[in-house]
Amino acid sequence: MNNSLAEAFKHATYYLSGHSKRNVRVLKQALTAIDDEQASDMYGRGEVIENFQAKMANYLGKEAAVFFPSGTMAQQIALRIWCDKKGIKRVAYHPLSHLEIHEEDGLKKLHQIETILIADETRVIELEDVVSLGKDIACLLLELPQREIGGQLPEYQTLEAISTYCGDNNIKLHLDGARLLEILPFYQKSAAEICGLFDSVYLSFYKGIGGIAGAILAGDQVFTEQSKIWKRRHGGDIISLYPYIISADHYFEQRKDNMAEYYHQAKELALAFNDCRKSATTPVMPTSNMFHVHFSAAREKLEPILSSICLETGIGITGYLKSTSNQTCSFEVSIGDRYQQIPKDLLQKGFKLLDERLGKIE
Amino acid sequence: MNNSLAEAFKHATYYLSGHSKRNVRVLKQALTAIDDEQASDMYGRGEVIENFQAKMANYLGKEAAVFFPSGTMAQQIALRIWCDKKGIKRVAYHPLSHLEIHEEDGLKKLHQIETILIADETRVIELEDVVSLGKDIACLLLELPQREIGGQLPEYQTLEAISTYCGDNNIKLHLDGARLLEILPFYQKSAAEICGLFDSVYLSFYKGIGGIAGAILAGDQVFTEQSKIWKRRHGGDIISLYPYIISADHYFEQRKDNMAEYYHQAKELALAFNDCRKSATTPVMPTSNMFHVHFSAAREKLEPILSSICLETGIGITGYLKSTSNQTCSFEVSIGDRYQQIPKDLLQKGFKLLDERLGKIE
Repeated sequence: MNNSLAEAFKHATYYLSGHSKRNVRVLKQALTAIDDEQASDMYGRGEVIENFQAKMANYLGKEAAVFFPSGTMAQQIALRIWCDKKGIKRVAYHPLSHLEIHEEDGLKKLHQIETILIADETRVIELEDVVSLGKDIACLLLELPQREIGGQLPEYQTLEAISTYCGDNNIKLHLDGARLLEILPFYQKSAAEICGLFDSVYLSFYKGIGGIAGAILAGDQVFTEQSKIWKRRHGGDIISLYPYIISADHYFEQRKDNMAEYYHQAKELALAFNDCRKSATTPVMPTSNMFHVHFSAAREKLEPILSSICLETGIGITGYLKSTSNQTCSFEVSIGDRYQQIPKDLLQKGFKLLDERLGKIE
Repeated sequence: MNNSLAEAFKHATYYLSGHSKRNVRVLKQALTAIDDEQASDMYGRGEVIENFQAKMANYLGKEAAVFFPSGTMAQQIALRIWCDKKGIKRVAYHPLSHLEIHEEDGLKKLHQIETILIADETRVIELEDVVSLGKDIACLLLELPQREIGGQLPEYQTLEAISTYCGDNNIKLHLDGARLLEILPFYQKSAAEICGLFDSVYLSFYKGIGGIAGAILAGDQVFTEQSKIWKRRHGGDIISLYPYIISADHYFEQRKDNMAEYYHQAKELALAFNDCRKSATTPVMPTSNMFHVHFSAAREKLEPILSSICLETGIGITGYLKSTSNQTCSFEVSIGDRYQQIPKDLLQKGFKLLDERLGKIE
């Protein structure tokens, strides 16, 4: 049944999530306006990389920024630099941090950095969690929004309090801002204002921005210069990063001002899911363009329902359900350009069908 | 004066080395024949990466192959896997290996692998060097051709003897084959025949092949599966590697059969340099598309000469001279598509001028 859901989803006309299919068109469109004679970057040098780094440093309100092929690489390196600076190979982050669950333990295997997991898996990190840690860590990493729990966010005052506490206690504060732009409408702050609370910041270009790949790591000049040395050690100082940089810049310009719209649409869509029987979102009220939908029914019961709705309305709700227990399953929504392409009446029809069919599950 | 040489070179009409300028056109041309709907790879999966990996595994005569964003990453990982397998964190390679001089000691800093430097800086590794090492190393890395000494190569019998010795003594043999295709005409062997002497092989796509960036690491299935885990740890398991893969495949097809021609032209060109006063190549007779040119005069004397020849004939000999002592300097030649575009009579004129002006140096 899983295959038939994936198959139906693949041929849907409309999609709740995302900007477009991830295909070669995304790259070609980014290249259209670029002069053929534009020179490649060369191992981190050249105007194509230096201009973009300067632009992002300015946007993030940091002294300098470095383009990386991936966030996995950028963040390990940030934590390594802060550990070396303090002389303590220990950092703290959320138990569901990307570094803990998606990176094959690179931080431990390559950098021998010990990790302390704080808060529990269901909620974001609060000031008390940080205070209870003691001062014997080099760096605290905060992921905003906390993706694996539906993109939850702490209060802005909490961020300020944690920042002050870390500053007072010689603990560096690093922002996993893979989805930084996506949270600006909720906080009603600029990127620079939020980054001002952190010593170092990472930003991804293929989430809400919708580029091909790549990341920015920003901080003070000493930090970013050290990060270039580690980038070379990791094998990330690639001779030409321009395919990623050009597309990052293109889609950053195209979408940076759309985030409030995505956020508004996420709240609207979450409401529709919460109005259905056996369906609820985390968070109940989204704080960015993303949330998780939880069904109180087994994956095997949901798959044919989502598949049938997809075939009948053309709306791809999701192509994959994660089984969270024998009687529950979930999936992630991440609003992009495609949501607004769905005709409103069709969307209503889809949710009517979803509610009816969920109601009939025994 | 250095700046004026670089400036003259930048505006040359013809070039001794390379295929073309490294600009966005190189990427656009590779994308021309690709369908816009072609799906991206996704974290190492999908037909665009899997098909190319299978193709390269077949070409190299290995069980499996993995596409990496860089050779720096691929080779550290190869050595790490072999060290873990034997339980000895020690490898051996040439003193001028890329890993030793161009990677900010990534192998040592990230993998804590000790390196033993064998042979001396002026020559390639011979069987006696390997035998004298003892058996207490996990892996021997051979770079073919040895780039930093002009692209020298050992005899094929030497490779066979080293391979047999390593096999008999439980030492893994890894090929730094950044320029593997470029040496096939000299050895008169297929890539698979040469790779058959090695346990693992790395191949680059932006040297003689002239792609954007990227590398293949090939070996047996257990080895390549482990390399994927380390690739993720390094931050190289990028969501979309297709800009590199598509261009690697495009230029591989375009240039793989040109290597004999580049090799022939390199020999012809080396002869011309060796016929000039105060000028000699290493090797005297190239064994691939590359060689180094050494001038027995100071860089400051050579720069205006090369600059003036460039302005008078339009031929860019080099844009950069490396000072090797107070009285000597050198540069690298690497033949690609551009060499054959130079009119023969113009090239003769250029060398006549070079010989005359070198002769006048006091």
